[in-house]
Amino acid sequence: MRSRVTVNANSISKVERESGSVFAPKFDSGGLLTAVVVDAESNEVLVVAFMNAEALAKTRESGRVHFWSRSRGELWLKGETSGNYLNVEEILVDCDQDALVIRAKADGPTCHTGARSCFYRRLDPEADDERALSPISR
Amino acid sequence: MRSRVTVNANSISKVERESGSVFAPKFDSGGLLTAVVVDAESNEVLVVAFMNAEALAKTRESGRVHFWSRSRGELWLKGETSGNYLNVEEILVDCDQDALVIRAKADGPTCHTGARSCFYRRLDPEADDERALSPISR
Repeated sequence: MRSRVTVNANSISKVERESGSVFAPKFDSGGLLTAVVVDAESNEVLVVAFMNAEALAKTRESGRVHFWSRSRGELWLKGETSGNYLNVEEILVDCDQDALVIRAKADGPTCHTGARSCFYRRLDPEADDERALSPISR
Repeated sequence: MRSRVTVNANSISKVERESGSVFAPKFDSGGLLTAVVVDAESNEVLVVAFMNAEALAKTRESGRVHFWSRSRGELWLKGETSGNYLNVEEILVDCDQDALVIRAKADGPTCHTGARSCFYRRLDPEADDERALSPISR
């Protein structure tokens, strides 16, 4: 496996981090970046999860989105059970390099519930929490 | 301030969490949810950050996006310095209720760099990290 994350995140200046061409991902205290996967055509957010350095490297190498599962404590190839892989079209990096947006083509529903996106409910800001969520249909 | 987050996240079943109408946000070990703010019209991801219970409550009450700044360790009304508030149109909740997508109208550029979105660079998956980022123009 090719070596990745070759630049130490603390070795570059704020200006370099925000405006340069050097990729120096800033993993949090748990070693994670936030990764938002959106549909490459519609921009709809499909799933939000986390990547450690290994998940990021495998995503770059394979072209399929890998996460780090915080609940299971293991590398997680999204779609490894369902076959519904997320095929990377483009990876965007934010200003401080601690979050990624991945534009992807999904082989099928992304959510384990069978929904196209994990975000299939709306929160009514005014409602009591006991009845605040309702399904969306788009 | 109205009391919020009235349902203990551990008191509901997996089925209720994933398919019910009860909002029981699952804060992580640091007391945070992931919040993805997207442009209400284009769906473009503008910024990714975190909310604690207070930031979530203030967002619901005020209609303006509030975060918890992990680096500064304080509540953060997005736009409090720049005037570029993020005005909530709709809040979506994911299957396991640990992430939000907020559809918002931005009063101006969202990124502190002046960019419309914090995600203004693309990562070349094949390139060496020292020259892996390039600006996008859309």
